[in-house]
Amino acid sequence: MPHPIRILHYGLGPIGVRIARLVASRPNLLCVGAVDIDPSKVGQDVATVAGLGQRVGVTVQPELRTALTQEKPDLVLHATGSRLSSVLPQFLALAEAGLPVVSTCEELSYPWFHHPDEARQIDDAARRAGVSILSTGINPGFIMDALPIVLSSVCPLVTAVRVRRVVDLSLRRMQLQQKVGVKMSRAEFEARRAEGKLGHVGLPESVAMIAAGLGWQLEKVEQALDPVIAPVALESALGPVAVGEVQGQHQFARGYVGGEERIILELKMALQAADAGDFVQLEGPEPVSSDIHGVQGDIATGAIIVNAIPNVLAAAHGLRTMLDMPPLRSVG
Amino acid sequence: MPHPIRILHYGLGPIGVRIARLVASRPNLLCVGAVDIDPSKVGQDVATVAGLGQRVGVTVQPELRTALTQEKPDLVLHATGSRLSSVLPQFLALAEAGLPVVSTCEELSYPWFHHPDEARQIDDAARRAGVSILSTGINPGFIMDALPIVLSSVCPLVTAVRVRRVVDLSLRRMQLQQKVGVKMSRAEFEARRAEGKLGHVGLPESVAMIAAGLGWQLEKVEQALDPVIAPVALESALGPVAVGEVQGQHQFARGYVGGEERIILELKMALQAADAGDFVQLEGPEPVSSDIHGVQGDIATGAIIVNAIPNVLAAAHGLRTMLDMPPLRSVG
Repeated sequence: MPHPIRILHYGLGPIGVRIARLVASRPNLLCVGAVDIDPSKVGQDVATVAGLGQRVGVTVQPELRTALTQEKPDLVLHATGSRLSSVLPQFLALAEAGLPVVSTCEELSYPWFHHPDEARQIDDAARRAGVSILSTGINPGFIMDALPIVLSSVCPLVTAVRVRRVVDLSLRRMQLQQKVGVKMSRAEFEARRAEGKLGHVGLPESVAMIAAGLGWQLEKVEQALDPVIAPVALESALGPVAVGEVQGQHQFARGYVGGEERIILELKMALQAADAGDFVQLEGPEPVSSDIHGVQGDIATGAIIVNAIPNVLAAAHGLRTMLDMPPLRSVG
Repeated sequence: MPHPIRILHYGLGPIGVRIARLVASRPNLLCVGAVDIDPSKVGQDVATVAGLGQRVGVTVQPELRTALTQEKPDLVLHATGSRLSSVLPQFLALAEAGLPVVSTCEELSYPWFHHPDEARQIDDAARRAGVSILSTGINPGFIMDALPIVLSSVCPLVTAVRVRRVVDLSLRRMQLQQKVGVKMSRAEFEARRAEGKLGHVGLPESVAMIAAGLGWQLEKVEQALDPVIAPVALESALGPVAVGEVQGQHQFARGYVGGEERIILELKMALQAADAGDFVQLEGPEPVSSDIHGVQGDIATGAIIVNAIPNVLAAAHGLRTMLDMPPLRSVG
């Protein structure tokens, strides 16, 4: 493995910035390039954008092409979008440039069920280029898919998987509160939901990864999304939330195998959620369960992306998933 | 991967028998051989020894050599002993016979710190033979090493690892109660401890695996073992336990890195232990913890050994550890 490993940051939004800070803190990693389309970031030093104390000496470029005229990176940390339809060309361009990638793109975490054509294109391009591409994160990428699969290793037989993740939005950034629909009226929430503009992306990918991991023939995935309505007035990063306004969302994805609901993923994100944490339950003759505490989405996503770097550099070429990866580790 | 995968059972003690039962329940696995030195088992059908309803059609042989004159297995499930000093020749013979192995041998789970010479010998033999050898289990193999490492993937920085496993011996087999020292006097426990005949094997290996996984330079491992004395009269599989007699054991292994205790593993096994379960804690600026319930040692060890089969058949040649393995899965 090269030392230090030269990193290009592709996308410096809220998650990209966290990733850049963690990269700057690791002596075996070196930022050599950065791309973001935001005009307020272009031309700035990465340190300014990421809120780092010391200059990095790397200027944010508006596109990949110009960023690559500088020092060639060993790997790209990609955090530009959740939807494969919008970021597919970026992955193809990265493969064409011969660059391994760790991405946060939710739909790429396990695209073989819902987006098999895009998955095949990216896999082919990465194999041709002799590089590996992995998308991971916390959800999808860990809590609702890789972790239940790892826990299944101690089970003689698993008949159903349930995961419940509860996020206390009061402790999270304004953008996330906004994305979830905090302060909306119920009617506004329902209208935006109808447009497909609400809801966390990636639960169906987690369902598909679990099914593939456990060797189950997945028939269909159903999703549901409801507002959580404030029963009392609440504070939020967007200002006060009145009684009857939206304080969060409650989302489900259900995977059917053999006509039965066998994978049930539940994500609740709400202001002042009292029961924050993660609960993984593997049903079967010898059930196993796990309560996990402390996995804060943004921080932990930054960590798992950076911790994936050695695994991706060592992986077989092509589009990889967490099912292929030896344990990612925090080597700080 | 061959279908079905032909399995040879090497060792049909309490764990080997569980493994054989799980193998018999999986349609993609086929028992084609079995070895055990116990004269009461030699010459019996595997089904008789393992308590299976239907004949397997495989007779237990007293040694590997004779077992291999039958159909050649694709892989050996090895469960004969905890100590490398006693089972090393078995691994060398298996490698020489060109057989991949999944083993329960505790000291082989991560032998590179405490038994580097034996590890090198086995690794060399496996590479020469073009096969992979993995030892795994619950403890060592999962709860106190692989699982904390997997959880570290979501941490920006881990500064210390603590794992506490509490086993309610009242729910476990007589042999385990006996091994732990149930019904001994304190003096007898201390005498046997001084002879090195008490204590669970494998905690130092878990410490070493965690250190290697997190990139820590392990300096030394300290162990402690104390009896748990019954404060009231208790029932056990060995008969009544009087006040003042041993009802269990309490064991610690501590790993030092940079002069500091950074890996602390605690194993308590006692009759009527109220707080049974597993607790993993990763310390650092963003601490993560997990409470795990339902991981019964014998059952879960049988499961993880069988679930490791596809991984070992697909692994790079040589002596592998859980650090090298993509997620093992329960594909029942």
